[in-house]
Amino acid sequence: MVCVLQCYYVQRLTCTFLSFHRPILVHNPHLDGLKDDVLYHFSLGTETHDLPAMFGDVKFVCVGGSPWRMKSFIEYIASVLGMEDPKAEYPNICAGTDRYAMYKIGPVLSVSHGMGIPSISIMLHELIKLLHHARCTDVTIFRIGTSGGIGLEPGTVVVTKQSVDANFLPKFEQVILGKTVMRNTDLDPGLAQELLECSKELNQFDTQLGNTMCTMDFYEGQARLDGAFCSYTEEDKQEYLHNAQKAGVCNIEMESSVFAAMCKMSGLRAAVVCVTFLDRLKGDQLTSSHDILNNYQQRPQILVGHYIKKHLTHKKDS
Amino acid sequence: MVCVLQCYYVQRLTCTFLSFHRPILVHNPHLDGLKDDVLYHFSLGTETHDLPAMFGDVKFVCVGGSPWRMKSFIEYIASVLGMEDPKAEYPNICAGTDRYAMYKIGPVLSVSHGMGIPSISIMLHELIKLLHHARCTDVTIFRIGTSGGIGLEPGTVVVTKQSVDANFLPKFEQVILGKTVMRNTDLDPGLAQELLECSKELNQFDTQLGNTMCTMDFYEGQARLDGAFCSYTEEDKQEYLHNAQKAGVCNIEMESSVFAAMCKMSGLRAAVVCVTFLDRLKGDQLTSSHDILNNYQQRPQILVGHYIKKHLTHKKDS
Repeated sequence: MVCVLQCYYVQRLTCTFLSFHRPILVHNPHLDGLKDDVLYHFSLGTETHDLPAMFGDVKFVCVGGSPWRMKSFIEYIASVLGMEDPKAEYPNICAGTDRYAMYKIGPVLSVSHGMGIPSISIMLHELIKLLHHARCTDVTIFRIGTSGGIGLEPGTVVVTKQSVDANFLPKFEQVILGKTVMRNTDLDPGLAQELLECSKELNQFDTQLGNTMCTMDFYEGQARLDGAFCSYTEEDKQEYLHNAQKAGVCNIEMESSVFAAMCKMSGLRAAVVCVTFLDRLKGDQLTSSHDILNNYQQRPQILVGHYIKKHLTHKKDS
Repeated sequence: MVCVLQCYYVQRLTCTFLSFHRPILVHNPHLDGLKDDVLYHFSLGTETHDLPAMFGDVKFVCVGGSPWRMKSFIEYIASVLGMEDPKAEYPNICAGTDRYAMYKIGPVLSVSHGMGIPSISIMLHELIKLLHHARCTDVTIFRIGTSGGIGLEPGTVVVTKQSVDANFLPKFEQVILGKTVMRNTDLDPGLAQELLECSKELNQFDTQLGNTMCTMDFYEGQARLDGAFCSYTEEDKQEYLHNAQKAGVCNIEMESSVFAAMCKMSGLRAAVVCVTFLDRLKGDQLTSSHDILNNYQQRPQILVGHYIKKHLTHKKDS
């Protein structure tokens, strides 16, 4: 018993020590020489805003494509954490621009990122610098999104094990000065497991762990038959998607690879949690009703909300 | 004189004939089999909306990254064409979604596309299908945007001759079923020349014809020194940008290559008109005042507005 307790306290102390010392890493010696760092696409900056005062307490960041969804997430998380004020409007912190929207309540930040790798990449560069300038530590980040499933019942939530490219390889190609550099797309396996546990506790919808294919477009890049251009057959499409399935791909979206790569480089614990809107083996068009799709897209919010509440409650109790 | 008149009428008849027969081309045999084509990211569809009635008269389409800018463009074009109604609000036709915003006045459509190749690619697939379903003919399309210049005075407008990739090559790589297909990024040379003529007539700001480099991200992909990550020196950056300049690159943005490729494939006359916000040889950060940047970003609108007005006036007079 003494031994178990000792192990417990050593573990807690180690966690506390580690978490206290897990800063946000930027890898850019040039930043130190900047008097003012203008985070242009957020309409924020180090000279114009007191970033440590505004963001220093952030411990959880949720990002997603749609600005509306990220506003609804902050309202949802406020109610989950019992921090809602029925009279309060949650102001958009990036109101000076329409590139991204950003909301905050307590230790939770919610940011939209638009669609596709380039759009989320700009947002992540500026978010990582923001968290660094704000001297945040021990931050966990989630991408909550929508996706096409492969062989899954629509509405299934997929927690990404590895993000893979269009050839099912776990890598992200970053072009720097015209040369291609390969980056790792591993996500935090412990965090993924904790999210699966949360789903079991909630018991409201199916959640699976699987690989997520990240593509450069929604139509030809995902073997859809309903774009403006299509040079392949239904059989070609089925063969490609079945090969993806054999490689462990459960769903397809458009941001996970650069999200995984950049979060890993900056020391952020990261997870990708996407609901599937349809089974791509059975079709391409999103014909489900608005109500059904709306219900589906709340599922990643519910799962991540449960995780955040659990962690904050645990911290308060301990 | 008879000969000149004959030439004139033959030319006019040929133009009329050609313009009448210049439809929007989709290259997808599967579309004919769709009972309903849901343009999901526009929140429009062939069963739910009368697309020919809503869009059949469209002759000019303007696209740009920011939804605010595309709303301000439709207000501006309404005033230029004398079609404004001081009491009128221009409704967002895509109000059912926050992925893109769309506005229309008379024959002019204005659509936002977000940031980066994947985001504009989704929009263009659905726009090309929309124009096709609406049975539009003889449509001219402009991307009006912002960019970083190379060796140009900030505020200079660049009309793109060719869109080139990060190695200064005029191609767009489209991944289909995991394989890379090369697409041509030529833009309409006649339209570019007409825009340069318009700029001379306006005589309000400098406009240049040049190549535009289209990159996959804003920071490392454009050799910026102020991202969250940077593994190269100021000298490496300068060498890369000077090499780009030697290859005829006047400015850098993030959408022109797929825009050029998709418009060419669908038979849309297309031009890219971007203002430069800064000279990248002298810096990376956007530190100019809001008023200056706002003035700069109106310039592509003014140029394209002048072109549209000239063409509509010419049509009315003829």
